[in-house]
Amino acid sequence: MPGASVKQNRLMRPGYGLACLARGDRLVPWTFERRGLQPNDIALKIQFCGVCHSDLHAIRGNSRFPLVPGHEVVGEVTAIGAEVTKFRIGDAVLVGTIIDSCGHCSSCNRHLEQYCLEGVTTTYDGIDRHDGSITRGGYSNEYVVDTHFAYHLPSGLDPASVAPLLCAGVTTWSPLRQWDVGPGKTIGIVGLGGLGHMAVKFAHALGAYVVLFSTTPEKLASAKALGADEAIISTDDVQMAAQASRFDFILDTVSSRHPLNPYLRSLKLDGTLCCLGIPKDMDFSPVLLTMGRRRLASSGVGGTLETQEMLDFCSQHNISADVEIIAAADIDNGFERLERGEVRYRLVIDMSTLAQPTGDAA
Amino acid sequence: MPGASVKQNRLMRPGYGLACLARGDRLVPWTFERRGLQPNDIALKIQFCGVCHSDLHAIRGNSRFPLVPGHEVVGEVTAIGAEVTKFRIGDAVLVGTIIDSCGHCSSCNRHLEQYCLEGVTTTYDGIDRHDGSITRGGYSNEYVVDTHFAYHLPSGLDPASVAPLLCAGVTTWSPLRQWDVGPGKTIGIVGLGGLGHMAVKFAHALGAYVVLFSTTPEKLASAKALGADEAIISTDDVQMAAQASRFDFILDTVSSRHPLNPYLRSLKLDGTLCCLGIPKDMDFSPVLLTMGRRRLASSGVGGTLETQEMLDFCSQHNISADVEIIAAADIDNGFERLERGEVRYRLVIDMSTLAQPTGDAA
Repeated sequence: MPGASVKQNRLMRPGYGLACLARGDRLVPWTFERRGLQPNDIALKIQFCGVCHSDLHAIRGNSRFPLVPGHEVVGEVTAIGAEVTKFRIGDAVLVGTIIDSCGHCSSCNRHLEQYCLEGVTTTYDGIDRHDGSITRGGYSNEYVVDTHFAYHLPSGLDPASVAPLLCAGVTTWSPLRQWDVGPGKTIGIVGLGGLGHMAVKFAHALGAYVVLFSTTPEKLASAKALGADEAIISTDDVQMAAQASRFDFILDTVSSRHPLNPYLRSLKLDGTLCCLGIPKDMDFSPVLLTMGRRRLASSGVGGTLETQEMLDFCSQHNISADVEIIAAADIDNGFERLERGEVRYRLVIDMSTLAQPTGDAA
Repeated sequence: MPGASVKQNRLMRPGYGLACLARGDRLVPWTFERRGLQPNDIALKIQFCGVCHSDLHAIRGNSRFPLVPGHEVVGEVTAIGAEVTKFRIGDAVLVGTIIDSCGHCSSCNRHLEQYCLEGVTTTYDGIDRHDGSITRGGYSNEYVVDTHFAYHLPSGLDPASVAPLLCAGVTTWSPLRQWDVGPGKTIGIVGLGGLGHMAVKFAHALGAYVVLFSTTPEKLASAKALGADEAIISTDDVQMAAQASRFDFILDTVSSRHPLNPYLRSLKLDGTLCCLGIPKDMDFSPVLLTMGRRRLASSGVGGTLETQEMLDFCSQHNISADVEIIAAADIDNGFERLERGEVRYRLVIDMSTLAQPTGDAA
């Protein structure tokens, strides 16, 4: 097998997966090619791939089509490049949202590759730094990646439920760590979806006092079961007024534009509201920043160091995502349910159900 | 004289000044009453009062009229309450934007009274915590204030040029200190008005590398004379693009709504853009917060501890405002020039030119 990996080096590798051929279309089977193994690359057979809200945004947005989504990938190493020492054939391996960066800027030097000053290469719809090809995501049979951006599956955790850690997980882990969430801090989490449910688990395990805000009454009990100390209906003006100047930090995981004033008012002096959603503009009153010297911030996924730190923490604290496993053929229905807010809390595609396109040699 | 102060204690004190009788009106002579001396109060004869942009906003805004503006006050102590030890009759004294607060909340306990959780009492258009009267500002003959909110004139500085330190000064000093501006940091200052010119002086004296952004070409040389290492026309897209990811901190002193994206792009990883203006909404793209984990913040004036720290720093570094002294009768013309951006950099009213309203016993 090591011989096979060397032989394929620099040769394109045939692949197949689920693609959106034009904006807004349903996903269909599609064949394509991936880059050949570079010396520090591994190839992995994909076993599970999480379904992220950003997959849906990419399908509906200004992406390059055909588009193969997926950036919460769990697989098994099937081939290694000539210089690979980090992995061996057969290892369980994880790939997240970023698969390359410049490697030499001030952000990359701190292993905060998500903030690479020259721009990251995303796992799908990115431009490969080696051959200029468009990257194809994890809704597919195989991935090829530099080992710097691949992680070992943490021991003791179920592979399918680990997949969402690579995006939903680290996207909440990174800001919780950046803003020193831990014992003695009162933390708000807004929204209980894929990101929010991970944020509640992490903030609780980090030792903070955790309050979950949701517009959905049915989610309050679930939030407490996941580790929240309190859960509050964010549209209840009386309850929200009682939160004034209470929070050290609020992590808002809601993707669409929504009123931020109730959360800004809830921050203590020098508190930060970190919004992970990226609407076109934000709905808030600047004077609420002035009162209390509050800060409005955002954060993007996580770097390789943070990702490894999170995986170690998850292994130690037995944390992974609450997932529902679906077959590849059910992805469009999955997107519809995701859009209706019916998923508790992350869909993961069992990629063993992915059929190789018929009449194709790949 | 101490006997006089005791005798007047708890009696209202007659006063006179320049008032705006209804929204948007010109200022006219007006008589009113101030609270009588409380045990820890001093009365001061006002010598100079700075003209702040917020005075203009108050005249045009939803204030309580009649309105006597002015919160950059320099005077001489003329009477002291029974328990006063901090001042003596004849001392040179300063009063700023805040003259009272609850005194017991978490912000007040840290002497960050500007963030008092029960709300501050402002120097004018506030509700006096002792007698419920409306506070009247420094465009007047006399002020009465608790000594906790009064400061000694720093030695070696010109009284008129110190007046603006009480608002324009501490409003920029406080965020520069909060965000650790000093040696090794690259700092942007946006706008070169009353606040901006103080920010340039402070940031330079604190040891930072200072870049001034202005829309006015004529201000570039002035900025360098005040201490800026570079000065850049903010509407020059080519120059602005070259600022990408360069700044640790940017202090934006512009009061009106303006595009923030050029400044957000100019911040380094984890950099902060602190906007002192409070428009109804802010013009920026949230994705620029996500890219580089940047923060958008604001800040309000300063507390008693910061104010004293700033005054000490100004005395040590021989810093005060660049002012133009005007007569009380010229205030409306002064407002017009302020509005047209013609002031370099702060108007200060010589209150000895204030005439006592005729036909009045005050």
